[in-house]
Amino acid sequence: MNRPDCYIAVVGSSVCNEETAKRAYDVGYELARRKAIVICGGKGGVMAAAAHGARDGGGTSVGILPGSDRNDASKYLSLALSTGLGEARNAVIASAADAVIAISGGFGTLSEVALALKKGKPVVGLLFSFEDISGLHHAKTPQEAVDLALRSILRSTR
Amino acid sequence: MNRPDCYIAVVGSSVCNEETAKRAYDVGYELARRKAIVICGGKGGVMAAAAHGARDGGGTSVGILPGSDRNDASKYLSLALSTGLGEARNAVIASAADAVIAISGGFGTLSEVALALKKGKPVVGLLFSFEDISGLHHAKTPQEAVDLALRSILRSTR
Amino acid sequence: MNRPDCYIAVVGSSVCNEETAKRAYDVGYELARRKAIVICGGKGGVMAAAAHGARDGGGTSVGILPGSDRNDASKYLSLALSTGLGEARNAVIASAADAVIAISGGFGTLSEVALALKKGKPVVGLLFSFEDISGLHHAKTPQEAVDLALRSILRSTR
Amino acid sequence: MNRPDCYIAVVGSSVCNEETAKRAYDVGYELARRKAIVICGGKGGVMAAAAHGARDGGGTSVGILPGSDRNDASKYLSLALSTGLGEARNAVIASAADAVIAISGGFGTLSEVALALKKGKPVVGLLFSFEDISGLHHAKTPQEAVDLALRSILRSTR
Repeated sequence: MNRPDCYIAVVGSSVCNEETAKRAYDVGYELARRKAIVICGGKGGVMAAAAHGARDGGGTSVGILPGSDRNDASKYLSLALSTGLGEARNAVIASAADAVIAISGGFGTLSEVALALKKGKPVVGLLFSFEDISGLHHAKTPQEAVDLALRSILRSTR
Repeated sequence: MNRPDCYIAVVGSSVCNEETAKRAYDVGYELARRKAIVICGGKGGVMAAAAHGARDGGGTSVGILPGSDRNDASKYLSLALSTGLGEARNAVIASAADAVIAISGGFGTLSEVALALKKGKPVVGLLFSFEDISGLHHAKTPQEAVDLALRSILRSTR
Repeated sequence: MNRPDCYIAVVGSSVCNEETAKRAYDVGYELARRKAIVICGGKGGVMAAAAHGARDGGGTSVGILPGSDRNDASKYLSLALSTGLGEARNAVIASAADAVIAISGGFGTLSEVALALKKGKPVVGLLFSFEDISGLHHAKTPQEAVDLALRSILRSTR
Repeated sequence: MNRPDCYIAVVGSSVCNEETAKRAYDVGYELARRKAIVICGGKGGVMAAAAHGARDGGGTSVGILPGSDRNDASKYLSLALSTGLGEARNAVIASAADAVIAISGGFGTLSEVALALKKGKPVVGLLFSFEDISGLHHAKTPQEAVDLALRSILRSTR
């Protein structure tokens, strides 16, 4: 495969309700359709749903796992990297991505968003749990989230 | 020296105004007086001020630096560890600390707060920039911040 | 794509002579032909040659870069992850791989070999620069190196 | 305390025989006597013995632990930092030290030596298990090891 130009992290909780999972799936699907690589934390919930969507959209997803055991990875991932870094892997996700889409989410997600913003990466919130963080783009639908993320990258690299 | 029982991270921006620096100094001083180790990111602003206060209070501060060059460290630190990890060092700070005091702060600070909360560590905000994060204790003065941090550790280890 | 079962790190210097590059290319090609994912450090020399071989063999290679800039990555990689971790990314490579093939190599390579051995992962040396490390398998050809690596994984997971 | 100018990592296995422990103790003691900070991996064996020596010599030792639990640390350490990074903490040790003294040792030790050499740091072996690594200084006694380490730093920073 040719190396794609665009890596988008989809971040969110490892456990989530169906509505949130549906949104994450749609984000993954749409990213795949638009030839972006999906990066995620490799576990369940939002991460698994985004990987599932990316697979169904014919795309590629990479899970960057905290632990040392690849068996912890979602089966939907194209690739699973067991880093052994613990939560420091959140910084790897923020570093490897060109932009971040944050869906719902808890404190782990918030750390990934903050690390991405610190690095000057565009971040789009989709029903993001922490509404008052400045510097985020806010989206109402998965399509809008993907649109905003991809457009923000174009803008920042032009 | 005997190993102390208590490590408190003081996190905040590497550039700050005088009022914020005064608060960070007072937090560092008070932590030292109460025999807690001060952990920080090792650079300027809030980090240097907290290390300065810890030194003047007769205590110990450890700077956990993102880069590979110890010359980047604040001169007030007792110890400076140049990790070479980049922003992933924020996860090390959150991991090494028993509790976190966040003063003012930007996105890097927010990531440290989020990583600490993710790990279940108590976090105290002192004029913390991100007011609406749930799960934080809020303090109005440096003394109250130190009180809350030390008491929250006692509670969580009892 | 379905997630493959087997990740082999190909490690070696970022600068190498043509003969070493030819061997790394052949290792990457053979790994791809046998449906293993190639993991490498993402830079030049042995890493780029292994990624080149994997591409020509119709396979997938992942570069795990030390820096924060994906533009430093070899163009032959299927995926490039800029970790921002510096040399600590060597531990990520050792953690993510099921086995390691070390070709020629300097001190960075030696650290990856040692980290893999520490984690109990099989390591195969192909003209490996450090001959007297115990615990390595030694191969004379790229094909033999791939054979040994894949067989050692089967054995360790049976 | 004033920040010291010199950080020496003492690396070796977490389990060792008495003779090796005696050597590590003597290295820690001598480093303390000469006002160098001892950095180590924070666990047992060589690490604990070096920390013990540093304490008895009136010096300071810092343990950089792989796990998240400070209770795993040797009681002899002045400071214990639980990084949560797993084996990637070996890269932090190599980064934070000005020079490394390797005593006996297994693959983890070898990785720390290799990472230090990769960064251009002086490394002294004292009965180091891997004799044929080029670029090491070899010492016959703890005193000679400390001498070589401290002199090599002076030389590299002059």
